[in-house]
Amino acid sequence: MIRRLFTQCQLRPGDVSPSRADMEVVGTFNPGAIEFEGEIVLLVRVAERPKERRPGWTPLPRYEPGGGIMIDQVPDEHLVPIDPRVVRRKSDGCVRITSVSHLRVMRSGDGRRIDSIDGPRFLPEADYETFGVEDPRITRIDDRYYLTYVAVSPHGAATALASTRDFRQFDRHGIIFCPENKDVLLFPEKIGGRYAALHRPNPATHFSHPEMWLAYSDDLVSWGDHTPLLGGGSTWDAGRIGGGCPPVRTQRGWLEIYHGNDKAGEDGDVGRYFGAAFMMDGDDPSRIVAQSGGPIMAPEADFETDGFVPNVVFPTAMIERGDKFLIYYGAADASTGVVGLARDELLAALQ
Amino acid sequence: MIRRLFTQCQLRPGDVSPSRADMEVVGTFNPGAIEFEGEIVLLVRVAERPKERRPGWTPLPRYEPGGGIMIDQVPDEHLVPIDPRVVRRKSDGCVRITSVSHLRVMRSGDGRRIDSIDGPRFLPEADYETFGVEDPRITRIDDRYYLTYVAVSPHGAATALASTRDFRQFDRHGIIFCPENKDVLLFPEKIGGRYAALHRPNPATHFSHPEMWLAYSDDLVSWGDHTPLLGGGSTWDAGRIGGGCPPVRTQRGWLEIYHGNDKAGEDGDVGRYFGAAFMMDGDDPSRIVAQSGGPIMAPEADFETDGFVPNVVFPTAMIERGDKFLIYYGAADASTGVVGLARDELLAALQ
Repeated sequence: MIRRLFTQCQLRPGDVSPSRADMEVVGTFNPGAIEFEGEIVLLVRVAERPKERRPGWTPLPRYEPGGGIMIDQVPDEHLVPIDPRVVRRKSDGCVRITSVSHLRVMRSGDGRRIDSIDGPRFLPEADYETFGVEDPRITRIDDRYYLTYVAVSPHGAATALASTRDFRQFDRHGIIFCPENKDVLLFPEKIGGRYAALHRPNPATHFSHPEMWLAYSDDLVSWGDHTPLLGGGSTWDAGRIGGGCPPVRTQRGWLEIYHGNDKAGEDGDVGRYFGAAFMMDGDDPSRIVAQSGGPIMAPEADFETDGFVPNVVFPTAMIERGDKFLIYYGAADASTGVVGLARDELLAALQ
Repeated sequence: MIRRLFTQCQLRPGDVSPSRADMEVVGTFNPGAIEFEGEIVLLVRVAERPKERRPGWTPLPRYEPGGGIMIDQVPDEHLVPIDPRVVRRKSDGCVRITSVSHLRVMRSGDGRRIDSIDGPRFLPEADYETFGVEDPRITRIDDRYYLTYVAVSPHGAATALASTRDFRQFDRHGIIFCPENKDVLLFPEKIGGRYAALHRPNPATHFSHPEMWLAYSDDLVSWGDHTPLLGGGSTWDAGRIGGGCPPVRTQRGWLEIYHGNDKAGEDGDVGRYFGAAFMMDGDDPSRIVAQSGGPIMAPEADFETDGFVPNVVFPTAMIERGDKFLIYYGAADASTGVVGLARDELLAALQ
């Protein structure tokens, strides 16, 4: 574990108003974050669920393209609860999520305190987003800001690409990694003449637990040369791992903060989520040159151990500030936090 | 169902010699097939398993890159049998397959009888192929023959690309669709200036049963613009569907023969596999303009209803011969068959 210089809970569900009077905000978490116009812009996942509770019925929200949020009321007897986030239909074995997410632009002057929470919204609007848009990661490439985000729909959980110059207007570039793929991170510059990304396929047939992969592209839209990069171990990362923060270039190579989970069970216990780090070669990211060898962050603050899904720290953005790294993360699938780590201590932990 | 002009079992496991004396061939099935030098070349999946049966142990084969087939002997008490093809490790819940496959080039002068079974072999050799190479589909583009095939390894079941000019030397082009993705079919020409493919992602989290998707590429290696194309229904195709034969251009558009399965259960019963057809717009394959509305082929011959996995017809190649289509397919995950269908009757079935 790395000593935290500070831990700040930046945002809780109660801080944010719902889209509609009949919805409630249950999560403000897993933020993208990047430097923009002298401030930190955060793009926060806002998860909402219907307020109404009819005994015997489960309300399942979705976006109707062009029509806002719709609520499907489903009899409880048709559903099997999986965990707080997911139910399974008995009829066909397929799942629905109990909330629906959109993204909101927020700003922080000092990188810690959020000064403005009512910025532009990135709402589900494509056919492949009807169950929500989630977990954005932001990378600046030249003069555009690219966001990779999870697009959920009856077609599955895919990763889509959008871009913006101003965090007001967003252009969509479609699905870049088909289902199931999450935790897609773009490198901020070309490597060997090509764009690069980390991704985390999650196949139906598990020959191993989910692994992080590397892929390359000429245009950020079409991706190939898929290569396995890193699998989990047998302890804190025995369940699943996935990319966290878009990689940051350091003198020693590409620094990646990622997450691991100690039990990706199917019995409702989702385990604990930790943050960890590795370093990739600067010219060839398929070469991992150093690893933290264990978690650098564990759920410890109250807002990390208690929440919609307890015991989760889920790093999603990293910003270098002098001799510190600020790590932005989702806490307990409910809140947004930021911790400060000393640059030297983090790099020293990478062996 | 379409009337079969003929049904021919072309190849059974007993027809083919194993790679090694201590292995036995359990499958010669799911063939790629294409016209080449005035004949039909078939690229047949040959599945082998260890002959030795030690009471209390399960032998699990794999390829060691550069070292041939290795056999891992695993105590039965560490494994849960899933179906004839797959076992699950109790320790971590991950699976292994009970056989390992390579591909063999065979030739048929008349398209029905196989004249030569001892052609070149396409053996697992990459890190992403250690559990075998499976289910090739062949498409001629310009003067090269491209094969998409399932590459299985501890990293999952992905689809990789290789190419050849002569069916003797093969060049590998890496993984083009990351796990889990099977049933990848290349269109034989560019559409709107880009290459196109059908693919079938199989996500861990099923918001629906597996669907066929469309993707585009400039170079056959990097793929993007992933778009859902077709999902299954609630009867013969309620379990899973997937692309079958690489699409063939007709006057009415792109003709696709695919498979559907009536029960993709996890309880060992894998259901019955059928063949069906749809037609895509010639200029915009995302538009399905006609469908067979039900199976055109069902398991009915003995070698289709009995075998390693009973009740499977799995179309993998289609060749136009005058007023007939020859459909090549895997039967019961064991044998290779070909049926002849009248061109007019097949097209008339597409409404």
